[in-house]
Amino acid sequence: MNSEKIKEIAGGVTAAKGFQAACTEAEIKYKNRTDMAMVYSEVPCTCAGTFTSNVVKAACVQWDQKIVASGAKMQAVVVNSGIANACTGQEGWDACEATAQAVEKELNIPAESVAVASTGVIGMQLPVEKLVNGVAKMSKTLAHTAEAGTAASKAIMTTDTINKEIAVTFEVAGKTVTLGGMSKGSGMIHPNMCTMLGFLTTDLAIEKALLQEALSEVIKDTFNMITVDGDTSTNDTLLIMANGLAENPVIADKGEAYQIFYEALFTVCRYLARRMAGDGEGASKLFEAKVVNARSKEDARTLSRAIVGSNLSKAAIYGCDANFGRFLCAMGYSGAQFDQNDVELFFESKAGRLQVFDKGTPLAFDEDLAKKIMETDEVTVFVDMHEGTEEATAWGCDLTYDYVKINADYRS
Amino acid sequence: MNSEKIKEIAGGVTAAKGFQAACTEAEIKYKNRTDMAMVYSEVPCTCAGTFTSNVVKAACVQWDQKIVASGAKMQAVVVNSGIANACTGQEGWDACEATAQAVEKELNIPAESVAVASTGVIGMQLPVEKLVNGVAKMSKTLAHTAEAGTAASKAIMTTDTINKEIAVTFEVAGKTVTLGGMSKGSGMIHPNMCTMLGFLTTDLAIEKALLQEALSEVIKDTFNMITVDGDTSTNDTLLIMANGLAENPVIADKGEAYQIFYEALFTVCRYLARRMAGDGEGASKLFEAKVVNARSKEDARTLSRAIVGSNLSKAAIYGCDANFGRFLCAMGYSGAQFDQNDVELFFESKAGRLQVFDKGTPLAFDEDLAKKIMETDEVTVFVDMHEGTEEATAWGCDLTYDYVKINADYRS
Repeated sequence: MNSEKIKEIAGGVTAAKGFQAACTEAEIKYKNRTDMAMVYSEVPCTCAGTFTSNVVKAACVQWDQKIVASGAKMQAVVVNSGIANACTGQEGWDACEATAQAVEKELNIPAESVAVASTGVIGMQLPVEKLVNGVAKMSKTLAHTAEAGTAASKAIMTTDTINKEIAVTFEVAGKTVTLGGMSKGSGMIHPNMCTMLGFLTTDLAIEKALLQEALSEVIKDTFNMITVDGDTSTNDTLLIMANGLAENPVIADKGEAYQIFYEALFTVCRYLARRMAGDGEGASKLFEAKVVNARSKEDARTLSRAIVGSNLSKAAIYGCDANFGRFLCAMGYSGAQFDQNDVELFFESKAGRLQVFDKGTPLAFDEDLAKKIMETDEVTVFVDMHEGTEEATAWGCDLTYDYVKINADYRS
Repeated sequence: MNSEKIKEIAGGVTAAKGFQAACTEAEIKYKNRTDMAMVYSEVPCTCAGTFTSNVVKAACVQWDQKIVASGAKMQAVVVNSGIANACTGQEGWDACEATAQAVEKELNIPAESVAVASTGVIGMQLPVEKLVNGVAKMSKTLAHTAEAGTAASKAIMTTDTINKEIAVTFEVAGKTVTLGGMSKGSGMIHPNMCTMLGFLTTDLAIEKALLQEALSEVIKDTFNMITVDGDTSTNDTLLIMANGLAENPVIADKGEAYQIFYEALFTVCRYLARRMAGDGEGASKLFEAKVVNARSKEDARTLSRAIVGSNLSKAAIYGCDANFGRFLCAMGYSGAQFDQNDVELFFESKAGRLQVFDKGTPLAFDEDLAKKIMETDEVTVFVDMHEGTEEATAWGCDLTYDYVKINADYRS
């Protein structure tokens, strides 16, 4: 890792050269809020994507998978929030096609280079005319400004309370490369290929196969390590578009340039993933689980995900209750094998660090300190397995009254 | 199935010949409530058991597994609520032994014939002296009465709001056999071998291997088909004791007598499992998912469990919101393979039946009727896969504010 070589800058999807964005109030499902966004590259892009592993895939996921698999260039993405376009049959597919064709007409690029993405209610048809009108409006307001990128990141939100965007720069062969991105949560979040919706843009020049490999690898320790509610969505989509305008020599092997890009990609994805976890539906805090010295990488991932995924763990975090038995219980049913007599467990936050379990035996601990540690906005459960050398970190959030409230009547 | 041959009668664990029960206020963790129970057979019993698949097993689970595996007879079970005796190391094991030895002293039966079970907070040591005193008190008040059985079923409750017990009779070779049982939930319920705590008693005479086989088979479609929160406990224990006092010819093969017993066992386990699901922590209603015409039995189980296990589905059921996309989404990530274009989905309850999804396409449906159907205390999601002939039913409950409330501060 060369963290000092990755510089965070202001901005998001419009930070890299040649990328523009726009958004509009299309009234897909709600009024008086922006609910459509578009990201456009001035030149065609090499692209890669990862998608939900859910057997029930939204029409838009199927549309995008086709583009990514075809090897075609991608030049625009149109996103709507409000209706997911999942479980919608032929009519859902037709809505994707109509949207892409509207972009073709407005911007004179092939419909086959236009990705679409949707988030919202499942099992409801999209209002195609509103989508087409939205594309027409956005095509006239596309801009290569930070403001346009930020506005787009807000338009794709559903129950999110904060927008998520980031941009970084790094050097490749003397050229400054920029990588930016945006994503949204915040319910039905338990990615199992990638996360709900994420869009990354870069002016890097790189071969398609390497772009896909980097993306597929990075999500394993970023988007795939977050969970809000254990529900893997029908719509999870992460796309990256690389337009080459940084004019670096095209990355064609896993040399130094690839490594720096990989690290930048990891930085961006990790940032967006953490933000999504901490802004999970109804969440009051970020809940992190770090597992070290596990028998294998897969075990470390499984164990840390089980901890942040347990409803009982999440409720304890909400109640600031150092009920550590729930974390051990979750580890126990995760599927990973281990001996509880090897395990040490700690609570950590900016307020301190406290060991509560020592190789099979519960420790008498300072309840006041435990409470203080847990009353912060980012709480970590740190587990030392003492059985190997592998580690992983997973992110989630607490389970609150508001989660129930949001989801007991989400459709209305 | 010969349902007409199985007769439900009043009572629970003391209904069968020769079984006695008692309970006491041992102040294990709370005052002013009964929190210890004991079930005792006047003669040694053939026994069988199923236990949690959690890698982190409570000391009492390990104790009982040893008895069941040894082939020894079982004659008593001592249960406490309040502290789970999980993650407690050697001291936890010693507490099991001290409890069993107290029974040996009081009732003059071998400590190796005494099972123990605990439910409550993980990672806290049991107060051994209170347990021993509790055993002494209970040994003097054991009674073969329905009241004693009911009192025991109440003493093992934690966050349960209702006690769960049932008894049935059936005929074997001219002899009347009785089978009774009790169980408790109601959080950390996602059994993956059996459920939280369940104790069954019968005066049937049966060989041990057949008793175990019947129990292991029956739980697959009863206790293993319920979920409250997806958390598989460290303490799940289901025990059955058969003392032979009905004086039927010992069941030694899978003939007619075994089939009738199997059906009675299924009836009892299904009843207790459903009651546990409907009384899940914070639950306001029973949430049932019935999947028919699936490709395999395992798929049918997986699909129905995924539906009732999804937090988003559970929140929709709480909100009486016919947001059927969440059920399809849960089916999609369950691991079972299917084509959404084959699937029909219905809502059912005593208030009516309504189709909402038809082979890939959402239907326009009567929202008022949907609300009426969902506002009852037992709601069923009925799914016809149209891909095979296998079916399964799973039971859960809704996700409510009270679930969060109960679990945000359970230890205090």
